[in-house]
Amino acid sequence: MNFCSHCGSDKLSFTIPRHDNRYRYVCDNCATIHYSNPKIVAGCLPIWEDKVLLCKRAIPPRYGFWNVPGGYLENGETVEEGARREVREEALTEVEITGLHAIFSIPQINQVYIHFLGRLRQLQFGEGEESLEVRLFSEEEIPWPEIAFASSVFTLQNYFEDRSRKSRQVHLGAMPDSERRGGYK
Amino acid sequence: MNFCSHCGSDKLSFTIPRHDNRYRYVCDNCATIHYSNPKIVAGCLPIWEDKVLLCKRAIPPRYGFWNVPGGYLENGETVEEGARREVREEALTEVEITGLHAIFSIPQINQVYIHFLGRLRQLQFGEGEESLEVRLFSEEEIPWPEIAFASSVFTLQNYFEDRSRKSRQVHLGAMPDSERRGGYK
Repeated sequence: MNFCSHCGSDKLSFTIPRHDNRYRYVCDNCATIHYSNPKIVAGCLPIWEDKVLLCKRAIPPRYGFWNVPGGYLENGETVEEGARREVREEALTEVEITGLHAIFSIPQINQVYIHFLGRLRQLQFGEGEESLEVRLFSEEEIPWPEIAFASSVFTLQNYFEDRSRKSRQVHLGAMPDSERRGGYK
Repeated sequence: MNFCSHCGSDKLSFTIPRHDNRYRYVCDNCATIHYSNPKIVAGCLPIWEDKVLLCKRAIPPRYGFWNVPGGYLENGETVEEGARREVREEALTEVEITGLHAIFSIPQINQVYIHFLGRLRQLQFGEGEESLEVRLFSEEEIPWPEIAFASSVFTLQNYFEDRSRKSRQVHLGAMPDSERRGGYK
């Protein structure tokens, strides 16, 4: 942030506003406070019989790695709508959401992953613009070293563990503190 | 948004960028795309024996109405950390989070509420700067017409229903479509 988006001034301070306890960009000209907050990554693990559907990323970061379909929640969407849209865009298919599965925070990069489980409505899918390949994997077939993100590893591991225990629950997780850079960025 | 926060130009278009499918503010001078996404409101319902703790708001909107402690998640926080911080700031007390309770989307205003349940660590609390009053309520004492937000009504109703059924689950909800204005704002 180099200029105030409200008045165009370049007189920005990085300071703690009055009645606040965090550093924000504040415009010295028009007094606008510019807030920045974490983003939601909404996703869904589509399931067909004993298999789960993953997408191979056609975009950075982690180009060529496998991922649970998901992406930034957009304004005007519920979390469930965002998750279904991401499956539609990345895997050209429709899921019926069957429940919440995981919330995984990555405070290091100001992201919160919200992952659902979903039933694939039909055995038909394809590569959306952001996918190189889309396919179903049994547990034994999961390419663990080629999973794109920690959030997807978390969701997949917990899904298979729940399944083997015949239990179902919502999993809360976060990137380990050792990875924590913390604070405002 | 009147000016590009990157280059300061006032040549902003509200258009669909290439490889995108949504309207964004795009700078015609430096080509920066300015994204806007929903915010997370992290909160926790503190519980003590058969009572729950609510805060009477000392700030708009809904000044003077009762609310589940909560507020915008900040950069650098996990969702659980944000929820505990809000309880600390608004009710001057500490909770131990015992589980996720509800995710409530309000796409009309680009918010997603994530509410936990928490155990009050001690029978001691007070009014933070944003609270006029903080107190414990039994189910019969809840001032339903004076609850600040739909998200808090959703959380409280589901909490008492779960308790009466001796069940526990995560509740997914959203503001009704009739309230939906939709789209980007």
